Amino acid sequence: MKMFRKLLTLDEAKQVIQRRFKPRPLGVEEISLLDAYNRVLAEDVKATLNIPPFHRSIVDGYAVKAEDTFGAEENKPVKLEICGKVNIGELPKITLTKGTAAEIVTGAPMPEGADAVVMVEHTIRKDDEVYIYKDVVKDENVMKVGADIKRNETILKEGRLLRSREIGVLAALGLAKVKVYKIPRVAILSTGPEILKPGEELSPGKIYDINSYSLSAAVLESGGKPVYIGVFPDEVAKLQKALTHALSSADMVLTSGGVSVGPKDVMPQTLNSLGKPGVIVCGIAIKPGKPTTFALIGEKPVFSLPGQPTSALLTFYLLVRPIIQRLAGRKAEKSLRTTAFAATRMFPARGRRTFIMVQLNRGKSNRLIAEPVPTGLSGAITTLAKADGFVELSENQQFIDINEKVTVHLFKSLEED
Amino acid sequence: MKMFRKLLTLDEAKQVIQRRFKPRPLGVEEISLLDAYNRVLAEDVKATLNIPPFHRSIVDGYAVKAEDTFGAEENKPVKLEICGKVNIGELPKITLTKGTAAEIVTGAPMPEGADAVVMVEHTIRKDDEVYIYKDVVKDENVMKVGADIKRNETILKEGRLLRSREIGVLAALGLAKVKVYKIPRVAILSTGPEILKPGEELSPGKIYDINSYSLSAAVLESGGKPVYIGVFPDEVAKLQKALTHALSSADMVLTSGGVSVGPKDVMPQTLNSLGKPGVIVCGIAIKPGKPTTFALIGEKPVFSLPGQPTSALLTFYLLVRPIIQRLAGRKAEKSLRTTAFAATRMFPARGRRTFIMVQLNRGKSNRLIAEPVPTGLSGAITTLAKADGFVELSENQQFIDINEKVTVHLFKSLEED
Repeated sequence: MKMFRKLLTLDEAKQVIQRRFKPRPLGVEEISLLDAYNRVLAEDVKATLNIPPFHRSIVDGYAVKAEDTFGAEENKPVKLEICGKVNIGELPKITLTKGTAAEIVTGAPMPEGADAVVMVEHTIRKDDEVYIYKDVVKDENVMKVGADIKRNETILKEGRLLRSREIGVLAALGLAKVKVYKIPRVAILSTGPEILKPGEELSPGKIYDINSYSLSAAVLESGGKPVYIGVFPDEVAKLQKALTHALSSADMVLTSGGVSVGPKDVMPQTLNSLGKPGVIVCGIAIKPGKPTTFALIGEKPVFSLPGQPTSALLTFYLLVRPIIQRLAGRKAEKSLRTTAFAATRMFPARGRRTFIMVQLNRGKSNRLIAEPVPTGLSGAITTLAKADGFVELSENQQFIDINEKVTVHLFKSLEED
Repeated sequence: MKMFRKLLTLDEAKQVIQRRFKPRPLGVEEISLLDAYNRVLAEDVKATLNIPPFHRSIVDGYAVKAEDTFGAEENKPVKLEICGKVNIGELPKITLTKGTAAEIVTGAPMPEGADAVVMVEHTIRKDDEVYIYKDVVKDENVMKVGADIKRNETILKEGRLLRSREIGVLAALGLAKVKVYKIPRVAILSTGPEILKPGEELSPGKIYDINSYSLSAAVLESGGKPVYIGVFPDEVAKLQKALTHALSSADMVLTSGGVSVGPKDVMPQTLNSLGKPGVIVCGIAIKPGKPTTFALIGEKPVFSLPGQPTSALLTFYLLVRPIIQRLAGRKAEKSLRTTAFAATRMFPARGRRTFIMVQLNRGKSNRLIAEPVPTGLSGAITTLAKADGFVELSENQQFIDINEKVTVHLFKSLEED
């Protein structure tokens, strides 16, 4: 039975999916700050202390009362009596009185009575006296309590991705543990009687499973944890079992293959047999990626992506990646983009949003040229490996002309190698 | 004892380090392809098979001899006898003879005697006969053996970072395992009597360890594995013990703190006591980061970074990150950059390469403005958290003027949020 109904456009498909499935973080866990790299903060963090927690010297030298140094200059030093020494990491035991100074090192707390520090370079010590050759003003060379972070200040917001700088701030607050969003688990399986697992012996008519592997990596790239389920034939009973297992092992399921218009396509019917509401989007007017299918089984989303590797990864980037990011509590990242000049005229497939894989090369005057990767035929995995990004043509666009300026969505940052 | 010798410039320091220490990958390990995300390929990968391994139909339809379809058009179909059906994932059991066609699905191998496929959309079947309404040429709708990847072709080169696309290519070749470079282990410790571990109770005069945490994350970002050693006081005997443990636990050691010009600085003398050649670079003419120290103990590199958190991370990016990347077998990435207009005049520290942390904001006409982050005083951790990147001023530069175009080295891609 052929279906001649109109396919949803990409925007319509996104809207339908958004209406039926609102991706939200899956829960919160508390982990060690040492394990928090690349995780997402699950709550606003307020400072529970002032940083620094005390008035702190930022140089090595002598803590003084600033007014005692007034008038000191290179040829007219002021002499102060040394009343003691402040060690780093300790509460100062001394109190400065008028006319005295205390030896102090960088990072040590200011003693009572002192309000500035003279750098050691501007002093000469003689036994228990120190000559000051440069005057200082109140608070000079002192980092005051709370100057960096004030107690109760909200210092990092919920949803912040934790990288080196954010983790440094949390450490400064003394937080050994941090509340982060749980990592979404994404079950991945491939379907098709021709698919073998890598490592198995190649037999006639078979090819190796690509998508489980490339999609697992793409899930990691998006902030999810891939759960490898395996390879299954296009048979309703076996698929039902595999999908039931996948749904119980993860927060989301990705399949690839088994959704083209071929007579053996059993994925949509299997999905509908597993629960309500079942298949919600069945085919999208995009090229490549037309057979892309979205279902909800209870509250768990299932994406069935095309079997062709480039289509599978492209539809992943278009539809699946933003959902994984939001389940992980991340903001959906915009893709990296650059502008370049079209090396050839590029045409969209009639009535379908079209994505053309391109390589970027430097042309004359060093300008960036976007050259379509020769796809040969649509099964090519190397197409994607050779591409630096893709150019998008809208459904109604006539063509992109040669030398026209185009936006290229990059697979990685251009400076990466 | 004060030292008044001339400091090395940043470029001189890099040269001295490069001359004494050549970072090379630390060895090779074979791992599952499912674990290979973000690892670095340790050998060239040659295709051990053709992809596809057989002539493959790329549509659903009928495998034919192209010449049998010549002249077929919408109003003048050609009639062929159906001689059988080719299933996907199996060696075809049939051979086409003149005047016959075989039913075939996408991905199935071409039967003997057939050299093209007519799409099902251009056919009408009547029992054991099929009417062809559009002629095809030889190889039409067929992906020929090796069209994507040819056997013996070098398909990925040593040193390639494995992301979703590369992992897809390796899967296509049937490789369940892959040889990658070992991950460099980087021991990290902080020094200073005022430093507490996050989670400990704050006592007077103490602050929390920031650098072990922020540097651990930075090591992960660079492709290394951090090994947390702990916090140690600036005492030779305890530092010797901690550094000996660190050197035996890792391929490289990072310390922070204990290298300023204060009287308690024991790091350089401790490093020299541990083995030859010892301290090689002791201080660099940069701001911030002047006390940065590099030592070699046997063949293991040790970087002693300043204790101030912004200085520690900046010197990490300048000197340590490229070495970790090369130990990991990665190419040293160039930083992401953008150009912006200076919001204020910026001055370098006299005779020192100077790095000024900036925030990027949009000014009028949407142009990017680089505004120095108010550092307040140099101990600030929030400086770094608020900065989008830094501007570099050379040793002999007078200043960057207000509204002058500057290059900003970004801590992350601008599109990230």
